[in-house]
Amino acid sequence: MLQMEEAIEILQEQVTAIRETEQIPLLEAVGRILAQEGRAGLDQPPFPRSPLDGYAVRGQDTEGAGKENPKLLQVIGKIYAGEAFSGRVGENQAVRLMTGAPIPDGADTVIRQENSDYGEDQVQIYQSSKPYQNYCYQGEDYQAGAVLLKQGQVMDGAAVSVAASMGLQEVSVYRKPRIAVISTGDELTEPGIPLKAGKIYDSNLYLICGRLAELGATPVYSCHWDDEPEGLAEEIRKLAGKTDLIVTTGGVSVGEKDIMHEVIRLLAARQLFWRVNVKPGAPTLAAVYEGTLIICLSGNPFAAAANFELLVRPVMGKLTGDKRWMVKKIRARLETDYSKPKGSRRFLRGYAEDGKVWLAAGNHASGALSSLVGSNCLVEILPDQAGARKEEEVWVYLL
Amino acid sequence: MLQMEEAIEILQEQVTAIRETEQIPLLEAVGRILAQEGRAGLDQPPFPRSPLDGYAVRGQDTEGAGKENPKLLQVIGKIYAGEAFSGRVGENQAVRLMTGAPIPDGADTVIRQENSDYGEDQVQIYQSSKPYQNYCYQGEDYQAGAVLLKQGQVMDGAAVSVAASMGLQEVSVYRKPRIAVISTGDELTEPGIPLKAGKIYDSNLYLICGRLAELGATPVYSCHWDDEPEGLAEEIRKLAGKTDLIVTTGGVSVGEKDIMHEVIRLLAARQLFWRVNVKPGAPTLAAVYEGTLIICLSGNPFAAAANFELLVRPVMGKLTGDKRWMVKKIRARLETDYSKPKGSRRFLRGYAEDGKVWLAAGNHASGALSSLVGSNCLVEILPDQAGARKEEEVWVYLL
Repeated sequence: MLQMEEAIEILQEQVTAIRETEQIPLLEAVGRILAQEGRAGLDQPPFPRSPLDGYAVRGQDTEGAGKENPKLLQVIGKIYAGEAFSGRVGENQAVRLMTGAPIPDGADTVIRQENSDYGEDQVQIYQSSKPYQNYCYQGEDYQAGAVLLKQGQVMDGAAVSVAASMGLQEVSVYRKPRIAVISTGDELTEPGIPLKAGKIYDSNLYLICGRLAELGATPVYSCHWDDEPEGLAEEIRKLAGKTDLIVTTGGVSVGEKDIMHEVIRLLAARQLFWRVNVKPGAPTLAAVYEGTLIICLSGNPFAAAANFELLVRPVMGKLTGDKRWMVKKIRARLETDYSKPKGSRRFLRGYAEDGKVWLAAGNHASGALSSLVGSNCLVEILPDQAGARKEEEVWVYLL
Repeated sequence: MLQMEEAIEILQEQVTAIRETEQIPLLEAVGRILAQEGRAGLDQPPFPRSPLDGYAVRGQDTEGAGKENPKLLQVIGKIYAGEAFSGRVGENQAVRLMTGAPIPDGADTVIRQENSDYGEDQVQIYQSSKPYQNYCYQGEDYQAGAVLLKQGQVMDGAAVSVAASMGLQEVSVYRKPRIAVISTGDELTEPGIPLKAGKIYDSNLYLICGRLAELGATPVYSCHWDDEPEGLAEEIRKLAGKTDLIVTTGGVSVGEKDIMHEVIRLLAARQLFWRVNVKPGAPTLAAVYEGTLIICLSGNPFAAAANFELLVRPVMGKLTGDKRWMVKKIRARLETDYSKPKGSRRFLRGYAEDGKVWLAAGNHASGALSSLVGSNCLVEILPDQAGARKEEEVWVYLL
């Protein structure tokens, strides 16, 4: 049977990273992937800046100054932050200035106001200062031409603020991925509608849409579909080309109502694979129709959940260029025993913390959903293992 | 000076957890805090369910069955997933059924179709089965009355899908926090506008708004304000009562243009504290006006950034009841030397991974912003330390 890593490679080959861009206001870019380089157009700060409230002077004029031996300087101006000053500080002159104000030409240091008599026309300086003490250099944070933001990086709060500091009002980001999610199955009822005999509520649609939204990609289309292959094929025909990826749940096994095989046939879509060596979720089916990848997950809730993490997320990572979609794998010490028959590569729900991992209490069946709440990882038990014992090291896939 | 932990306590005392709720569609609830309990109204599955395609039979009727010694059973009906069946499986009878279909009364096990001749009126059974093998019990996932979702928990993808499985179309969540962000300073220019001499671009507004949005709380109000205390006091007067928290940057030091002291005075707001033993950002000022907490951060970009993480996030945590706002503290091994004068509690930008932490390259000055990009933590150097050495263990605050 196809190995999971092979399946991931086959799926990733079918998608190309989104390259269409959009220009959006800076704050709307939070969480998006930058499509441009962020190169500084000016030094930051753009001028030598005072780091405190005080007097801009020539250091040499303060030599030997002290409380007992003040230096008297002539105050030739006053600069608040945000103001420009065209004068020049000459010998035995000073300019009163506030934090953030530009240090005027001629001056090479700033005397803290607490070390003066706060004079307005003349000022007594009580401390000497060396040139470039209390002096914030032009370009100290960054210099014009520096690449501060890289194409392909996530625009987080820090990146947004750095872009603002460069004067960028808008940035170019890659467009959002367009994902369609379809749950199939005659047995599924939309939440909110009274349940008839033999029916259950549709949780898969909410699981896949919910996880996508949680990870930053609200689907552009989501719908439940009954087991009617013709109608569903027609719907997928309409969605292809308008979406980057279609994820379905249900109908992938071998029964009469496992309609996804028929849907693929009706579409004359190119089947990539059916069945992957992963439990739960082995019958995952994948196809390409008119360039749009279709990943058909099992209808068992935990099988759909696990294969979303294992197979769909790497595809989202390739598509968006956003590494956060890639599931991080770590080694952790199992705190719970578990046994299984050899032969299958099993993924279990668990909770990992500080290098330890506990299997979720309760039902591990692929049809059981509720123990997914509170789980934060999948625990892998390899095919050649008949389970795993407490204190054994296992691979853990952090969700 | 006030210790950081004391400041956090004082700030948290001024806010009460949001208790107003709203009823919203399930998928819109992703990321929100649940205001209700999620108690199952029905068993899941609501009926005994077939885990595979096959024949529902009485286990005792298959005793001794084998490929060489098949048991012939009469097929009295067929059930697809989603269908109800009112008949009862009697002695030597079988019902054809598909994965997910209810197991009819009388039957206690399901024979996999591969272990039969797929008969339609009569079926040859090639394998014996014990009662309750291949049998998914009613309520196996959860039982009516079980509390599956707790008031106060985050509605992640898993929680949303479990709510859907219970039939919930909408859930009650706490309303979003209403945060106003104001940057102050005559020197600040809105990005996109050409920079005049002496001015810099406003990055603080974007930093605080960006971080809030990144962490899930897009501000309801954000604005830059010049150093006009009367106008700003009037604006805060309007915002109070409509917002849960007002965060400002700039104007908290001791200079002539440090207007926030004057704003607090004009509002006759109750000052909670001014100055905290944290570097950068010591001059943080806090006040309460008509029940609304106002946290005034330093205008130095890194000081604003650090104190947002250290002081504002715990307030957001208390307000929203969402633990994700709480900064996680871990011990990590420093991979970079750093020296500082003793006496101040210093926070530095760093990057932590796998128990190690590297200080950000470049400028650690509180006025420097760019090295915040790529940092993922704050590294704490305690007041009694004159820096820290490579391989020393330090506290790291994960952002």
